[in-house]
Amino acid sequence: MNVNGVSYRTIWLKPDDATTVQIIDQRNLPHEFNIEDIDSVEAMARAIQEMHVRGAGLIGAAAGYGMYLATLEAAKAPSFDESLSQSYQKLKTTRPTAVNLVWALDRQIKAIEEAMGPDAKIEIAKAAAQEIADEDAAYCRRIGEHGLELLQEIAEAKPGEPINILTHCNAGWLAFVDYGSATAPIYAAHDVGIPVHVYVDETRPRNQGARLTAWELGQHGVHHTLIADNAGGHLMQHGLVDIVITGTDRTAVSGDVANKIGTYLKALAAEDNKVPFYVALPSSTFDWQIQDGVNEIPIEQRGGGEVSYAQGLCDGKVKRVRLSPETSPAANYAFDVTPARLVTGLITERGICQANEAAIRALFPEK
Amino acid sequence: MNVNGVSYRTIWLKPDDATTVQIIDQRNLPHEFNIEDIDSVEAMARAIQEMHVRGAGLIGAAAGYGMYLATLEAAKAPSFDESLSQSYQKLKTTRPTAVNLVWALDRQIKAIEEAMGPDAKIEIAKAAAQEIADEDAAYCRRIGEHGLELLQEIAEAKPGEPINILTHCNAGWLAFVDYGSATAPIYAAHDVGIPVHVYVDETRPRNQGARLTAWELGQHGVHHTLIADNAGGHLMQHGLVDIVITGTDRTAVSGDVANKIGTYLKALAAEDNKVPFYVALPSSTFDWQIQDGVNEIPIEQRGGGEVSYAQGLCDGKVKRVRLSPETSPAANYAFDVTPARLVTGLITERGICQANEAAIRALFPEK
Repeated sequence: MNVNGVSYRTIWLKPDDATTVQIIDQRNLPHEFNIEDIDSVEAMARAIQEMHVRGAGLIGAAAGYGMYLATLEAAKAPSFDESLSQSYQKLKTTRPTAVNLVWALDRQIKAIEEAMGPDAKIEIAKAAAQEIADEDAAYCRRIGEHGLELLQEIAEAKPGEPINILTHCNAGWLAFVDYGSATAPIYAAHDVGIPVHVYVDETRPRNQGARLTAWELGQHGVHHTLIADNAGGHLMQHGLVDIVITGTDRTAVSGDVANKIGTYLKALAAEDNKVPFYVALPSSTFDWQIQDGVNEIPIEQRGGGEVSYAQGLCDGKVKRVRLSPETSPAANYAFDVTPARLVTGLITERGICQANEAAIRALFPEK
Repeated sequence: MNVNGVSYRTIWLKPDDATTVQIIDQRNLPHEFNIEDIDSVEAMARAIQEMHVRGAGLIGAAAGYGMYLATLEAAKAPSFDESLSQSYQKLKTTRPTAVNLVWALDRQIKAIEEAMGPDAKIEIAKAAAQEIADEDAAYCRRIGEHGLELLQEIAEAKPGEPINILTHCNAGWLAFVDYGSATAPIYAAHDVGIPVHVYVDETRPRNQGARLTAWELGQHGVHHTLIADNAGGHLMQHGLVDIVITGTDRTAVSGDVANKIGTYLKALAAEDNKVPFYVALPSSTFDWQIQDGVNEIPIEQRGGGEVSYAQGLCDGKVKRVRLSPETSPAANYAFDVTPARLVTGLITERGICQANEAAIRALFPEK
């Protein structure tokens, strides 16, 4: 998608140096737009853990490219396999909730195992990393096409009026390689001339909505309004939201949806006000093993400082301000799980289905 | 309650100058503790509107003292009645949702009308302002006594373990003259040795939880943990909350509760997880005219800047940081309405009742 009129992905191989990966460092967006060179597994692990890159699809793509960097390092190590295995472990422990991380790592391991000798392993890992990224972009584009049908239906029911969509966190192109999951239908609708307006939850504590979703929608020219995370219930109560679309970091095969903390509260409000609540995801985000999402999906706890502080622009610089008394401890659960019973439907690259195992497996019978 | 070991109320007459009111200016708490002199109706209106003082009970007390200042100004004006009426209007339009505001103003008008001549009117307004403040403190103390019984019941069911209470916004002593409404039972329980722990919603966009509730609980020695507004649903889903207690800015006689934006979302989560959801209020917060709170209680919309920015301490100074792109508009609904069906009970100065008209009127038959 576009940044200041120039087309970008969120991650790519450096054009003049294919041993280096480049990413958009998302930490200081929207105030600073920085491209970062990543030339080691260590640097990629840090970029994932410290959220230079974040979001379901992008974490997967970053893990894929990380394993390519791992083959470059393994080729110089005393034992290729041991080095690769250490890199795998290092990358795997960066973020516990995102299922795409392990999915991409395992896909790379399988690819690398099939090649004979370091050079071939490097080449195959490079190709697989590109493939994971390209596939992510292609799947998001298709999610957009399927979700567009939903938005077209709503548009037909209120001709001439804008469709009001509420979204939480950033499941935009910045969370993937391109297009995004929750935003893909929105961009698709905007591009065919359907008037859309997006309520963007700021998404404390890290403000991915205020910082990233507002920024990327604005760059693409999509009308949007920033709101506090507290506001969605009131908006739905008063008929100001036609549909909620969020992303997910892991969706159990039962349809239980792990997503950014606060998603569950919006799903409850949607149900209470009969507003359709959809979750958009590429199939790589399904966890085919887990049935009881609420009790089985591990929920990452991050440092309390993200809650005690807020980060933003002050006097031209990105700064952190302390919100609370220094002596007050803070807890920081990064995700919550929305039970399948609150989810109207899942928008995948193969189409839309209900949030239950039978419907999900009918779309993905090979799993 | 105590600030650095010294006992304070939130508003009082200046000891050596009874034509001046003093308030704790809450805007820069917890980073700066400032006492402000208020010596005109204009200054009091600004203090209410710009939230130097805020919270249901304190707005009422400030309006009461404001009308006392209004009599001082009216005595010097060409027409006492016209001046008083202008002051009444000025104070009335400062905050649209808080019912205590109009309640206190009307109580003052009635008192002032009964006195003959400017001097008597000044005296009676001064006495009424003190009475409103004293009554607010006394009612909050009684709310604490009634709420304590609820907490004792929970404590008996899990001996030795702390009771986990979740609260939203600040319905603490800073929102009243003393004790607070939602916090009164918590302070009462703490004071009799029941182990309590409070999850404090930060309460975006103005962060009254992070700034005020965390501060006043800390000053009183009550264990607490700051959380993002998004986290309450997850905590309740996992059995980490025994009871939710909030305040209210206006409660319809039907039991519908207007309170800080986001309260409705917490009430939905409480219902979904069978966690009792109580609202604490002095009876001055009842609106005896309104039946349909969701559609009839006016909801204040404030400037979007409160959502686009966050305020806190940076390099030893209170500063604002911009969270979102400069070009992204923001909406800022200050309150929402929780339907009575989601409210387990109301804790008033006369006891606890169900959130419906019959039960409320049974406690307050004279209304």
